Amino acid sequence: MSRAAAWVVTIGDEVMRGEIVDSNKSFFSAQLLLLDLETARHVSVSDDPKAIAEVLREGAQRARFLLISGGLGPTRDDITTQVVAQTFDRPLRRDAATLEALRAYFASVGRTMTEGNAKQANFPEGAEILANPLGTAPGFALDVDGCTLLCAPGVPRELYRMMADEIMPRMRARLAGDGVVRAALLRTFGIGESALDHMLSDIGAGDDGVKLGFRTQFPDNLVRVVARAPDAESAEQRVRATLDRIRERLGPAVVCEGETPLEQIVGSLLIEHGRTLAVAESCTGGLIAHLLTEVPGSSAYMLAGVVCYANESKVRDLGVQPDALDRHGAVSESAVRQMARGVRERSGADLGLATTGIAGPGGGSDEKPVGTLWVGLATAAGVEARRYHMTRDRSRNKRLAAQIALEWVRRTLLDIPLPEGPFPRLGERPR
Amino acid sequence: MSRAAAWVVTIGDEVMRGEIVDSNKSFFSAQLLLLDLETARHVSVSDDPKAIAEVLREGAQRARFLLISGGLGPTRDDITTQVVAQTFDRPLRRDAATLEALRAYFASVGRTMTEGNAKQANFPEGAEILANPLGTAPGFALDVDGCTLLCAPGVPRELYRMMADEIMPRMRARLAGDGVVRAALLRTFGIGESALDHMLSDIGAGDDGVKLGFRTQFPDNLVRVVARAPDAESAEQRVRATLDRIRERLGPAVVCEGETPLEQIVGSLLIEHGRTLAVAESCTGGLIAHLLTEVPGSSAYMLAGVVCYANESKVRDLGVQPDALDRHGAVSESAVRQMARGVRERSGADLGLATTGIAGPGGGSDEKPVGTLWVGLATAAGVEARRYHMTRDRSRNKRLAAQIALEWVRRTLLDIPLPEGPFPRLGERPR
Repeated sequence: MSRAAAWVVTIGDEVMRGEIVDSNKSFFSAQLLLLDLETARHVSVSDDPKAIAEVLREGAQRARFLLISGGLGPTRDDITTQVVAQTFDRPLRRDAATLEALRAYFASVGRTMTEGNAKQANFPEGAEILANPLGTAPGFALDVDGCTLLCAPGVPRELYRMMADEIMPRMRARLAGDGVVRAALLRTFGIGESALDHMLSDIGAGDDGVKLGFRTQFPDNLVRVVARAPDAESAEQRVRATLDRIRERLGPAVVCEGETPLEQIVGSLLIEHGRTLAVAESCTGGLIAHLLTEVPGSSAYMLAGVVCYANESKVRDLGVQPDALDRHGAVSESAVRQMARGVRERSGADLGLATTGIAGPGGGSDEKPVGTLWVGLATAAGVEARRYHMTRDRSRNKRLAAQIALEWVRRTLLDIPLPEGPFPRLGERPR
Repeated sequence: MSRAAAWVVTIGDEVMRGEIVDSNKSFFSAQLLLLDLETARHVSVSDDPKAIAEVLREGAQRARFLLISGGLGPTRDDITTQVVAQTFDRPLRRDAATLEALRAYFASVGRTMTEGNAKQANFPEGAEILANPLGTAPGFALDVDGCTLLCAPGVPRELYRMMADEIMPRMRARLAGDGVVRAALLRTFGIGESALDHMLSDIGAGDDGVKLGFRTQFPDNLVRVVARAPDAESAEQRVRATLDRIRERLGPAVVCEGETPLEQIVGSLLIEHGRTLAVAESCTGGLIAHLLTEVPGSSAYMLAGVVCYANESKVRDLGVQPDALDRHGAVSESAVRQMARGVRERSGADLGLATTGIAGPGGGSDEKPVGTLWVGLATAAGVEARRYHMTRDRSRNKRLAAQIALEWVRRTLLDIPLPEGPFPRLGERPR
């Protein structure tokens, strides 16, 4: 039987009791695709030596790479290292340098090192130690008959760092015989996944060693470029050339390279351009302000937000004319323009951003159905407003509306015109 | 080899490519615990017939129950039913009633039924059909030599409903020989998981057929009560009696029975008491308004929110005295009191809720370290303010602060006093 490229194994009672939604597995698999490796199986088991040994044996027989997270901590439940040692008959050896580093760490925080912590300096004979600069549990790599085991901690922050710095390079090295793989991601917004696939159908379709892939991170879509070549320089060059072609094709729908969220991109642009922002939110209900303030340092540019759920708030806090609300309603071009202008003028911010709409499930009418959205942006140059229609549930409509609004700010700061008409195919794909 | 209680299998390329974080597995496992069943293994495979058949065979040999989600849709990738039929040698039979229901559904939405849809009326011989009132893909139960397979769609909304209405009752029936199991959950806030465990250590520790379990849903902790008895009435009675004991012990730390989020509890209480709310947010940055407005119908009680990130906004939008900010700073009792009073008076709401603090990572000082939080609540009776200290990262500090603030509203509406001093052990448990 030929080996699968990879299995992913996560270990821990908290996973098996449904206490946490295990995102490490999807993280591992998304990373493996950047090496052009498909995951054949995800398996999780509890902190039970028999169950762990079973899955380790199965994985080592059936996969080329076995990526394992969890069970490297200091408590008695953390038995991954020990079980690996027993299963593959590699006696545990205590690593002096790791032990010394642990001792120094505990001394520096004024705590005594327990035997549980010292256990974290044990590794199966023949293992390569994988540094963990963010925690006390190092990982390890171990080659056993035809399979490379890569063991990492379950704490996501520590795992992500170890994956980038320690695991990916080792996997690349072991895959070198099959050529070199390089990859990159583009974050896009405003084009549905199937439309993206169609627009880029000629890219990565030939035998030039380039493959495209797509992943939705609602409401954005990520495009993955994977290139294979005999050497690193050519692989890198293929990735770059493909990224250029995609950027040219998609134009401003590309938000950034990588996975940086839009609110962080917008924050960096505001700092770079020396601008400040204020937000008036009706249907997004505070979500835009919440997203912006998730970014450390956002107090430098985020001056104020108004969540004007009641009409009285729109009048009192933003200076919207009551007769405009009477004539056109709160979900109208007139209202959103006055909201954007009002929040800009009252806060003294350079940009005033406003949303009003009907997130659902109630509140719709024939003229203004659920999903109706108005976005407005006031700048020194004046006020712009546009209408959109969204087709998701309340929570996703709020999320999509926030993204549309933030995308306006990004485009405005970069002097990119908004597309004619609504963003194409917004909310196209029911999931 | 004795059989494990349950395996959980999820099927789909989107899982194996890391496109989605698969929450169905943790949902299944949390539900299984309500039947007093531990999950021995989670496995996911792609839409590949060989891979699916392999894991079905393994699971059916090694587990009493095999819970399966995904691959019941109408497209060519959806092959779960077909693979089950082949693997266990049960020819497919088309169910006339299901076919008729599908036909009626497509006629009602004015679409033509494709052969792909008709395929959803096929079931392995001997299967019991599980109704899916929320989608076109019914599930099925199939008993094969010592194992019960339960197949459900991968769409979470459909899966949750089918689990409650179709799968849990069938599992209960098959477990009847071992006695009857009943269970319930309590949502608690303000007591850490280990402290909870300690406070309730004498409950469910005896041989009365009652077991307790704990699950963190940051920042809340859920307590699970599972009771086993010879008959349903006794099991139910044991659950109720245990819930009463826990409620008595924990007092107002119990937010509700079940998993309803706090913002929805608060919303229902506001409606019930005929009260309205306005929010002034500094360190929570719009999150409280966002949470409140996730609840459909929240416009009935949520009048306005002000995200006063800049001091100017606190003065202009809330009437905070500039000299109070000069003397005590924006993170102070004086500021939070004025914010709460200001937002209440300006909005005309019955309750004015305010937060100010240092979410981190920057902005701390010796006197006001990162994690410092002031919450204020203004009512007709006056203004109350308290200081807390939080120990998480920026995002979790915001989330915790929002929960503390919403919990104040809940307690105020129910006339429950706040605990003396800060909520015990907030942010105690680093995860």
